Amino acid sequence: MQEIGKKAKAAAAIGNSLDINTKNNVLEALKDNLLKHRNEIFQANQKDIKNGIATSLSSAMLDRLTVTEDYLNNMVQGISDIINLPDPIGEILETKTLENGLLLKKVTVPLGVVGIIYESRPNVTIDAFALNFKAGNASILKGGKEAIETNIIFEKIIRETLENFQIDSNFVQLIKDVTRSSTTKLMKLNQYVDVLIPRGSQGLIDTVLLESTIPVIETGAGNCHIYVDESADLKQALIIIENAKLQRPGVCNAVESLVIHQNIAKHFIPELVTYLKEVQFKGDKIAVAIDSRIETATEADFYTEYLDKTLSITVVKDINQAIKHISQHHTGHSDAILTDNQVHADLFVEKIDSAAVYVNASTRFTDGFVFGLGAEIGISTQKLHARGPMGLKALTTYKYIVKGKGQIR
Amino acid sequence: MQEIGKKAKAAAAIGNSLDINTKNNVLEALKDNLLKHRNEIFQANQKDIKNGIATSLSSAMLDRLTVTEDYLNNMVQGISDIINLPDPIGEILETKTLENGLLLKKVTVPLGVVGIIYESRPNVTIDAFALNFKAGNASILKGGKEAIETNIIFEKIIRETLENFQIDSNFVQLIKDVTRSSTTKLMKLNQYVDVLIPRGSQGLIDTVLLESTIPVIETGAGNCHIYVDESADLKQALIIIENAKLQRPGVCNAVESLVIHQNIAKHFIPELVTYLKEVQFKGDKIAVAIDSRIETATEADFYTEYLDKTLSITVVKDINQAIKHISQHHTGHSDAILTDNQVHADLFVEKIDSAAVYVNASTRFTDGFVFGLGAEIGISTQKLHARGPMGLKALTTYKYIVKGKGQIR
Repeated sequence: MQEIGKKAKAAAAIGNSLDINTKNNVLEALKDNLLKHRNEIFQANQKDIKNGIATSLSSAMLDRLTVTEDYLNNMVQGISDIINLPDPIGEILETKTLENGLLLKKVTVPLGVVGIIYESRPNVTIDAFALNFKAGNASILKGGKEAIETNIIFEKIIRETLENFQIDSNFVQLIKDVTRSSTTKLMKLNQYVDVLIPRGSQGLIDTVLLESTIPVIETGAGNCHIYVDESADLKQALIIIENAKLQRPGVCNAVESLVIHQNIAKHFIPELVTYLKEVQFKGDKIAVAIDSRIETATEADFYTEYLDKTLSITVVKDINQAIKHISQHHTGHSDAILTDNQVHADLFVEKIDSAAVYVNASTRFTDGFVFGLGAEIGISTQKLHARGPMGLKALTTYKYIVKGKGQIR
Repeated sequence: MQEIGKKAKAAAAIGNSLDINTKNNVLEALKDNLLKHRNEIFQANQKDIKNGIATSLSSAMLDRLTVTEDYLNNMVQGISDIINLPDPIGEILETKTLENGLLLKKVTVPLGVVGIIYESRPNVTIDAFALNFKAGNASILKGGKEAIETNIIFEKIIRETLENFQIDSNFVQLIKDVTRSSTTKLMKLNQYVDVLIPRGSQGLIDTVLLESTIPVIETGAGNCHIYVDESADLKQALIIIENAKLQRPGVCNAVESLVIHQNIAKHFIPELVTYLKEVQFKGDKIAVAIDSRIETATEADFYTEYLDKTLSITVVKDINQAIKHISQHHTGHSDAILTDNQVHADLFVEKIDSAAVYVNASTRFTDGFVFGLGAEIGISTQKLHARGPMGLKALTTYKYIVKGKGQIR
């Protein structure tokens, strides 16, 4: 692992010197090479799928693992999107001349070496490399063991592409030891790794947060709430909740918990339960008393990111209680208020401490593409460095360049 | 400790709602109260000094601990500087209307709860509270046991000031259990603390980096280098090195290591050793062969932040070797090249991955006040969130506010 770290750091040493044409040409060539090697990719992926079936992976896991023609085309399109983004490096954020004549510039530079720890989805191998490379970073990738064959062929294609340009192929290194112990070693590689980004289940993220001595960007878990205020347009509320819950239940910006004002609860809850037939509701005592189709929720339910067609539901006496409930249970990802009351909307926006706070819209919009970042390395639920959808900019830092003529202090 | 965390989080919940006048009025009142209670402060400080003498603290430690009239006035002046800064909260960083009509705003908000772990200097108690409060953050402060009496009176004055404004006094909480175990507990308080900033010795910082499960901003250690290129103005070089080493040897932006081009080494090194009489030099073989007044350095010397009147010195064959040597040994704080060669200056600036990279100037300028940030909570030597001098902005994050009219995805 030390060797991998050392090689990554050596590659990253030229990251700040790569010009934008070189970076984009490499990414263009990577697109071609992925398509050219599609059969090898599908073959490798078939091995993973066979192993997955043999080891009884869930169908959801198998689904995430499978590389189809469409999936490959989407990955290639993703690289095109990254190519189209401006160079994030060398941007002058600030420039000033101090009183003593020193010229001070604050300029964006690569982060350096970025470690990504992820689970089944093999597209992360390509996405993460492409974003990191555009930002001048070297990637150390630790994918899931269930996708190892696919990841190995992806890494090979990337490395060959880099070699064709006489660029250090250690800009990408896949950790092929798929045991947990390699992850543990990676998390202690402070000397070489500048940041770790875990992508995957809450369990994975928690482990990295607890064990890593390297700075971590926490991503993902979204226990997203929608508060339906007394004055909400209830027809619209049904449509927004349906969208936020059902358009894609397995993603982090899907709604998991509803908070309903008591004055509309009696009317709205039965209507909602009827409207969302597919959804299983788990509610507090008041909700259950209003509609017997609702199961009784435990306190744990209100902390749960179901990632499924399940919704918890609680009834509150006013907006302050709603804010309190949400602040206590959410993960700081995305929360919404549905209201026609401007004062309540403003209060909610001021008080709810989440990466994205919505008024009268679905929580499903929290996304790098939607927010105009062009591409996304993940959604940060922490407050340091980057919050919410993270694009290329989150993969950079800056340095101060100070030019003088012999100034002393 | 759980209780402290809970209280801090409750206070921080109103941090985003504090208007700028309230914040500045509290800070103005704090200035008055500090001056009004000067005698109590000096008395408490005397207790710490007596304890320090009894426990044989070093004179440097005692010096850092001592609150004089001047020291107090400087602290008060520091608060004035913070009052004069614009409100860092509520700044709109970005605003756009998406195609579907959603109005997206990216707005600065407080970080939340900030833990500061520090050593002897009691002024940090006031500085850290004042900066954090201006940014709407609640502070949990763990100061050194040697300053506990002074810190207690400072905390009392801050809390009384807040109470006078009917503001939750838990915006500041000093941890009065000065054992290490309270620090350990603080470092695991993920549920309540958003970020930890250690300020002090490398040992303290390393411990926090290793043990904390909360995001940390690494501050401080500066193994700063100056490379004297072949074409440098050697008269100017003497003056710059003198300033960088001797103006204040105990600070993180003081130079610790010199890298000298071989073509000027024979001439320049003896001149330098003669010029800097007070300095103890430790050099590689070539340096020692040139000037026998130089002691032989160990490899560890080149990694050492002396914080003293000591300089390590190495001779290199060209700028590439200089860049390699510095990249291997520095801490990424501040490094300088002295040269008349524009190509070399540009190469150095491009390749050296430090928070501040200097051309023909002293490394001593890396400082929040000098860089125009107005005040400083520390100097970050990590790449996430904030790099180099950190001002008020480093104590904020942002959130996205998304306003719609029923949009769904």
